[in-house]
Amino acid sequence: MNSLRFTTQTSSDGVVERDFTLGEIPGVLWSPASAADRAPLVLMGHGGGTHRKWPAMTGRARLLVTGAGLHVACVDAPGHGERPRTAHDEREIAVMRRAMAAGEPVGPIVVRYNAHLAERAVPEWRAALDALQRLPEIGPEGPVGYYGLNLGTAIGVPFVAAEPRVTAAVFGLHWPDALAGTARRITVPIEYTLQWDDEHIPREAGLALFDAFASREKTLHANAGRHKELPRFEADSALRFFARHLGRTVMTPA
Amino acid sequence: MNSLRFTTQTSSDGVVERDFTLGEIPGVLWSPASAADRAPLVLMGHGGGTHRKWPAMTGRARLLVTGAGLHVACVDAPGHGERPRTAHDEREIAVMRRAMAAGEPVGPIVVRYNAHLAERAVPEWRAALDALQRLPEIGPEGPVGYYGLNLGTAIGVPFVAAEPRVTAAVFGLHWPDALAGTARRITVPIEYTLQWDDEHIPREAGLALFDAFASREKTLHANAGRHKELPRFEADSALRFFARHLGRTVMTPA
Repeated sequence: MNSLRFTTQTSSDGVVERDFTLGEIPGVLWSPASAADRAPLVLMGHGGGTHRKWPAMTGRARLLVTGAGLHVACVDAPGHGERPRTAHDEREIAVMRRAMAAGEPVGPIVVRYNAHLAERAVPEWRAALDALQRLPEIGPEGPVGYYGLNLGTAIGVPFVAAEPRVTAAVFGLHWPDALAGTARRITVPIEYTLQWDDEHIPREAGLALFDAFASREKTLHANAGRHKELPRFEADSALRFFARHLGRTVMTPA
Repeated sequence: MNSLRFTTQTSSDGVVERDFTLGEIPGVLWSPASAADRAPLVLMGHGGGTHRKWPAMTGRARLLVTGAGLHVACVDAPGHGERPRTAHDEREIAVMRRAMAAGEPVGPIVVRYNAHLAERAVPEWRAALDALQRLPEIGPEGPVGYYGLNLGTAIGVPFVAAEPRVTAAVFGLHWPDALAGTARRITVPIEYTLQWDDEHIPREAGLALFDAFASREKTLHANAGRHKELPRFEADSALRFFARHLGRTVMTPA
């Protein structure tokens, strides 16, 4: 059983950022600078081709920490960030780039490669959650959220389906292929985001994945715009969603 | 030109509620008790079979007034609340009740009757907006929002399409028939709500009306649940939407 080793710590504007490693996996934990008691944890999965400290990750983490006093953790996905790529990773990435350059649909390749990454990532996330819950400021009891779009959804759906400790999740921006069957086993509250004019994910495909979740409370947020035009106010909505389901009060005007 | 006549005034928990009449039309204006400067106005359309002081109206009004310092006005729709029903109203309501009792689809009747009510209501709303903007605490300059679901959408879509003073709108829970063509002329930011498991409005119909709006910024919120199970947190989302588009800051945690 790997334990979590903190490497560096910085602090700014009320947020403590601690890098850690869990075995070979680099991660980061953002926490309230003023935390007195234990607070719930949100696990954040980054998107394809990015990493744990991509601006979208640091921005969302800061919002959740300052807005609702949550802890937020993100680890690099397999083959992403500081982690080595396997020969399989290199081949799939080359295939994806050729398709993009040729203007061919990347969906089938992304779906296949993300499913492969999820198989590697789910056990890592479960180990990371074990280790994070051993920290005294998080603890084993509290509710846990999961927040991840595109690759973060490809990994998050099987992770949340397998992980009873996660009690609320924000997903989005993915195809239903390889995920809809697993989504049917998820019953915790979810918020699901899609882009109404997504040039990669057909509208019906996004709606089909949302439809698949078995959750009694589920909300779809569909915004006008293309794949990468997700509005910033959706992060604010995620903050409110997690505050509601993890038992926190939103502390800052937004 | 009818002017607005205030009849009664009460105040509680930071909200001043003033009943008014505009010619024969009864209305209500909710305002911040502490308002110093002018503040923007949100016009609120109530649902079919209800009236200007239905609990959903007073609850949403209080949220917008205390949460963002807005003025909120609602008038009874034709044939609703304290207003007399015409013979046409009585006939349509009877037809609707018979369909409900027989378990037949009410959609076609509601669509037809709502379109009729909208024809009567749109000029009334324009006159009400004229009169409300003559009040010194509102004024003719400020941005104006519109917030109305089901019948409030049937009236609101043609009203907003005809009314350049309205700069942001929350709609939802309606069929596209009779409205989609008009929605294509609306370009202001909108938030649109539908119920994923609506027993009256087919899912594809709700999605089609959302799709019709020409707005560059438009957001669909689809929640699991039946027609009348719209979650309370959607009012909170509407508060944030109006604060964003009418230039206000959300003042209370929510």
